[in-house]
Amino acid sequence: MFRTSFLVYALLYSIAAFSAGDDMLGFSRSQADGQRQLEKQFDGHLKQEEIGNWIKRLSARPHHLGSANDRENAEHLVELFESWGYKTRMEKYRVLFPTPRLRLLELVAPTSYQAKLQEPALPEDETSGQLDAQLPIYNAYSVDGDVSAELVYVNYGVPEDYEELERRGIDVRGKIVLARYYGSWRGIKPKVAAEKGAIGTIIYSDPADDGFVPGDVYPKGPFRNDRGAQRGSVMDMPLYPGDPLTPDVGATRRAKRLKIEDAETLTKIPVLPISYSDALPLLQSLGGPVAPNSWKGGLPVTYHLGPGPAKVHLKLEFNWDMVDLYNVIAVLEGVSYPNQWVVRGNHHDAWVNGAADPISGLAALMAEAKAVAALTKSGWQPQRTIVYAAWDGEEQGLIGSTEWAEHHANELQNKVVAYINTDSNGRGFFRAGGSHTLEKLVNQVAREVVDPQVGESVSKRLKARIKLTGTAEQRKEAVTRRNFRLYPLGSGSDYTPFLQHLGIASLNLGYGGENRGGSYHSIYDSYDHYVRFGDPQFDYGVTLAQTGGRIVLRLANADYLPFEFEGFIDNIGKYVREVVKLTDKMREDTDRLNRTIDEGTFRLALDPTKSLTAPKREDPVPHIAFADLHNAMEILKVSVGDYQQALDRLDRQALNRNERDKLSRLIYQSERKLTRDQGLPRRPWYKHYIYAPGFYTGYGVKTLPGIREAIEERKWQEADEQVRITAGVLKGFASQIDKATQLIGKQTK
Amino acid sequence: MFRTSFLVYALLYSIAAFSAGDDMLGFSRSQADGQRQLEKQFDGHLKQEEIGNWIKRLSARPHHLGSANDRENAEHLVELFESWGYKTRMEKYRVLFPTPRLRLLELVAPTSYQAKLQEPALPEDETSGQLDAQLPIYNAYSVDGDVSAELVYVNYGVPEDYEELERRGIDVRGKIVLARYYGSWRGIKPKVAAEKGAIGTIIYSDPADDGFVPGDVYPKGPFRNDRGAQRGSVMDMPLYPGDPLTPDVGATRRAKRLKIEDAETLTKIPVLPISYSDALPLLQSLGGPVAPNSWKGGLPVTYHLGPGPAKVHLKLEFNWDMVDLYNVIAVLEGVSYPNQWVVRGNHHDAWVNGAADPISGLAALMAEAKAVAALTKSGWQPQRTIVYAAWDGEEQGLIGSTEWAEHHANELQNKVVAYINTDSNGRGFFRAGGSHTLEKLVNQVAREVVDPQVGESVSKRLKARIKLTGTAEQRKEAVTRRNFRLYPLGSGSDYTPFLQHLGIASLNLGYGGENRGGSYHSIYDSYDHYVRFGDPQFDYGVTLAQTGGRIVLRLANADYLPFEFEGFIDNIGKYVREVVKLTDKMREDTDRLNRTIDEGTFRLALDPTKSLTAPKREDPVPHIAFADLHNAMEILKVSVGDYQQALDRLDRQALNRNERDKLSRLIYQSERKLTRDQGLPRRPWYKHYIYAPGFYTGYGVKTLPGIREAIEERKWQEADEQVRITAGVLKGFASQIDKATQLIGKQTK
Repeated sequence: MFRTSFLVYALLYSIAAFSAGDDMLGFSRSQADGQRQLEKQFDGHLKQEEIGNWIKRLSARPHHLGSANDRENAEHLVELFESWGYKTRMEKYRVLFPTPRLRLLELVAPTSYQAKLQEPALPEDETSGQLDAQLPIYNAYSVDGDVSAELVYVNYGVPEDYEELERRGIDVRGKIVLARYYGSWRGIKPKVAAEKGAIGTIIYSDPADDGFVPGDVYPKGPFRNDRGAQRGSVMDMPLYPGDPLTPDVGATRRAKRLKIEDAETLTKIPVLPISYSDALPLLQSLGGPVAPNSWKGGLPVTYHLGPGPAKVHLKLEFNWDMVDLYNVIAVLEGVSYPNQWVVRGNHHDAWVNGAADPISGLAALMAEAKAVAALTKSGWQPQRTIVYAAWDGEEQGLIGSTEWAEHHANELQNKVVAYINTDSNGRGFFRAGGSHTLEKLVNQVAREVVDPQVGESVSKRLKARIKLTGTAEQRKEAVTRRNFRLYPLGSGSDYTPFLQHLGIASLNLGYGGENRGGSYHSIYDSYDHYVRFGDPQFDYGVTLAQTGGRIVLRLANADYLPFEFEGFIDNIGKYVREVVKLTDKMREDTDRLNRTIDEGTFRLALDPTKSLTAPKREDPVPHIAFADLHNAMEILKVSVGDYQQALDRLDRQALNRNERDKLSRLIYQSERKLTRDQGLPRRPWYKHYIYAPGFYTGYGVKTLPGIREAIEERKWQEADEQVRITAGVLKGFASQIDKATQLIGKQTK
Repeated sequence: MFRTSFLVYALLYSIAAFSAGDDMLGFSRSQADGQRQLEKQFDGHLKQEEIGNWIKRLSARPHHLGSANDRENAEHLVELFESWGYKTRMEKYRVLFPTPRLRLLELVAPTSYQAKLQEPALPEDETSGQLDAQLPIYNAYSVDGDVSAELVYVNYGVPEDYEELERRGIDVRGKIVLARYYGSWRGIKPKVAAEKGAIGTIIYSDPADDGFVPGDVYPKGPFRNDRGAQRGSVMDMPLYPGDPLTPDVGATRRAKRLKIEDAETLTKIPVLPISYSDALPLLQSLGGPVAPNSWKGGLPVTYHLGPGPAKVHLKLEFNWDMVDLYNVIAVLEGVSYPNQWVVRGNHHDAWVNGAADPISGLAALMAEAKAVAALTKSGWQPQRTIVYAAWDGEEQGLIGSTEWAEHHANELQNKVVAYINTDSNGRGFFRAGGSHTLEKLVNQVAREVVDPQVGESVSKRLKARIKLTGTAEQRKEAVTRRNFRLYPLGSGSDYTPFLQHLGIASLNLGYGGENRGGSYHSIYDSYDHYVRFGDPQFDYGVTLAQTGGRIVLRLANADYLPFEFEGFIDNIGKYVREVVKLTDKMREDTDRLNRTIDEGTFRLALDPTKSLTAPKREDPVPHIAFADLHNAMEILKVSVGDYQQALDRLDRQALNRNERDKLSRLIYQSERKLTRDQGLPRRPWYKHYIYAPGFYTGYGVKTLPGIREAIEERKWQEADEQVRITAGVLKGFASQIDKATQLIGKQTK
């Protein structure tokens, strides 16, 4: 499900005064040599060909949640993991998954057109003709509906777009909106449309974002052709992901379930995705004002806003079925700390064949797991337990991972050191997001993994990319900061329940940027597409396995967990500066806007023959009491400084196994201290106070979400409260670090 | 011919410490009252209906240079001006004007297509069917040619575009290039293409710039439809405008002429403009790399660069005729200073019917001239001579105005106080460019002319517009600077020979921005189009007449010419800062680029499977000796300060008529001091050292052109020389001001 543009992943180097030199974090010099030896052995077990074969095998048939092939793939994975030596089990859940019974979209005025809603099979794509097993084009968790109304074009359908419409006197109440994909996660579009009073939402792939504008379309090139469409879930994941009927608990057979009509994460209005060939007649039939420049897409039409004269009829009926979901869990027990788990996951379900999404990532995970198991054949065993997971039902809303995380919440919060996620993978640049306590570990690994195309480290290549394409600030950091930054995690793949619900330090890893295309969530996400445009030699499959494998092996083997807090502080400090700056900027912008309105500038400057009017006055932005947050940061700096000093002075032999166990627990459970049981305002499922998906962005992250979203939504009192709460959270985190310092302090030389 | 985007006209308010209050520049308080009275009377003679009738009458038939209707319109104008009381004469020249005998453009591989090269008549447009009298779609002063070659898409065809091609290993030598309109003046495209070795140029109107993307196409809306194309001259006007055979001299019957083959301003390779429906099959047939994002237009195709497989055959033959050109010159003699002339002009020729370009501006000039003449009926007479001119052959390369200016060069340099130009006019915002010595005069007038739609001054409305859409710096100035800035003049209309060849202070005035559309240089620039989309009530025709009329009347009536030098210095100081900053930025950019190349960043970051390579290293940017220029500015400041002080102390009655005459001459001839007889490097026709059209932009201005273009073209030695020369020019200007100060000084109280 994971998909977003390259710049989001902008990651930067660091000058932060970390411990000098390039010691391997968590290992003594001599241990590091052994570890590198082990990693070299590990690399020897990775084979491109095997990765290619797995991708072909697992994407040979459509294998969505609830399908026979989905189950068959899961069973095949169980067999494979077993055969490599993992203690493997299938963990089944029973979840709500609607599939279409009836889909009708027709233009009824001023001309008539019936949408085809069908991607054609192509001779160049062997699996594209498996019509019997393919899920049709639709958005899962749309409600049933039968609506007819005038159409309004709403651009990406995010809140600011409705402000633009309002300035033109256009109201979507009682209307059906036509939104284009991108600009937000898709589920935001019907959510906002419903909030604004619309009665239906159509989402189309515009060729400017996803079609012939970026490049040649399939099968000539990799991009989305005129009949291609993007399936996808529209459940309200920013509220909670997973099975809509079982929030907070695992969807076991006996779980207590909501009634469907009480499930808050279903859409409020019917939603349907369409191709750009189906969108063209609708756009051609719209009248009203010409759309603002930034709203114009790539179709050969003057984009108008409506409403009408285009009138559409949208009718959707779904089979509201309960289906079985199959998570594959494979365990390699640790010898020293069997109750400390390193969990590594990738989903196995797809919307259709899913060669790229998710199989390209899953195949790298499999190569990694097989190679890790192979290491045990020569006598090595991990100190900590390693768990490999292949999730089901990710596409529908991270269901497999979420149900598992909810089901085993207490055990996972107690035992899991870190969760490392992957998803689609392809040719290009390293992308790493996650908990900033793991930033140094990831950077150390990225400096040792070699890019298969240019023969230099993936870290160096990423840095070069940022130097060419980053913002001014990013380019500067690429020179001055030794470590690149991990991008903070929003949502869009299976790390969400671990990180944001359970408070487990998490990573999301992958390669890409030179595998651009438009097969996402279509029947063309196939092996044929992938070997032409994704990762033709499966080189980056190996590279991802090398990357993920090193991170897993270091987390599993280190005497002292490779977490690091100075880089964490540097990142949190950046987020604090951002929310302060955001408030100041909003204040200035609001003042300027109100002054501009009051002075009559809009009245003078706008074309009196057009419908565009001045924006509305905004309430002034008060000063927020940020002092608590700044003070908490100071406390945190002292705690981290003390900890680092104590650690540097520590004779590492001084701690016995039990003490090391205890220290590790304090360290990895520090992430739990970044959460609160009450969760975020209006969405208690999300408990993390540093990272959350945006309530109105969906995938896009909001760091310091309690504070940031209160400010963005102009809830000033809430912002003050959230500053206090977030400061408290950071102080709790500092106390945890202090406990670790005390534990070490007893033993220092 | 005049056409450019709104932001180029960005004009800004001033805090410069001009003489306090709002005295009417050049008039005493009591004289100012009388002048305002006169202007009110003048307004009373302006009638929308009359303007509309003239537009209809003069655009009723195609009337390009050399056509019967062109001559008939000129004769009609002579009659009208005569009837209003002007001493009117026709000034004829004989000039080279090629028209098409054969136009063939065909795609010959990989498929075949023959370009239609024809705009269809439309029932909604009464004059669009006058096929017999219409000039076909073509570019005048293209050479004949018969070439076949592979096609390369070159975006706007400016020098930087070829650098992008080079980075992809694409060479246009021996190829035909396909360029889109905009991004430069059209004549630059074949000029640069030929410099790069191409053998033919096709220029098309892309719908992103000029078609369905900005809005609905004609006849539904005002924008260019799929068959519409842009005629236009491609002579090398940045070298010299006017008749290609008679540079520097008037093209009288007996003038000495170059042979056609020696005329430097003809293109080197054949050029043809086409519509976007004719361009589509060409673009569809291009292979090679996908174009960079900013090169992509609005057609429903993936834009590729080529070369090939598209191969085209371009064959062009022209009738290289000598034709008669008819300038209309109407004179109202001044009573006090008959040898001081205020010249006011607008061209009368069009590419086809030209309701907007140029008749909308010409009709406003006519209303103004008629009203001025009407004032004389009630006894008023101008102190200075007023000359109204209607130029012919502007569209071909400012031929009528250029030949007249060259023919009468000595007399004009001696007598002309200022030249005030207009061209197309329409609904919207005031646009004023020109000599900065006239900035305060224009601002004073703009504060007194009322916008017909919003009922506030056109200055206030413009300021509001800048506040909404300007750059940060412009928005700031809109608040802090009382006077908006005149935009500096490049080229594109008839001010060029007066300002840049003769050194006569010039203005270019008009309204627009709410009259957007795509009728420019097409058969659809018609009365029907204009009354729907240009200026439906002819309100802005009246407003332009009010504006131009006030400027003419004040220049003609003032005892002391309303020139002002403090605002001039403020603007020149800005240009000086710009060239210094430009050099520093180029130095930084060059250093960064070379470092980035040397560090291997491109090698690491670019996709090794794609053709895109690193840019070439650049020679480092030395420090330019700007001190001379800064010193000259200091001298100028002192001179202007002294002058202003002397003027403020002057008892205006102290100067007699002869002394006032002499002072006026010193003042208006100060603009001549901004020129050098030798002209600019490599283009001696252009003599002005503050304003010139860019050698590689065409219309786009280069201020301090000697210095700026040397820097931009990395000619470091020339840059140093040009700094010295320009500093000398500014010192010469200062000396002229000193002479005026001395003259006043003798008489001060």
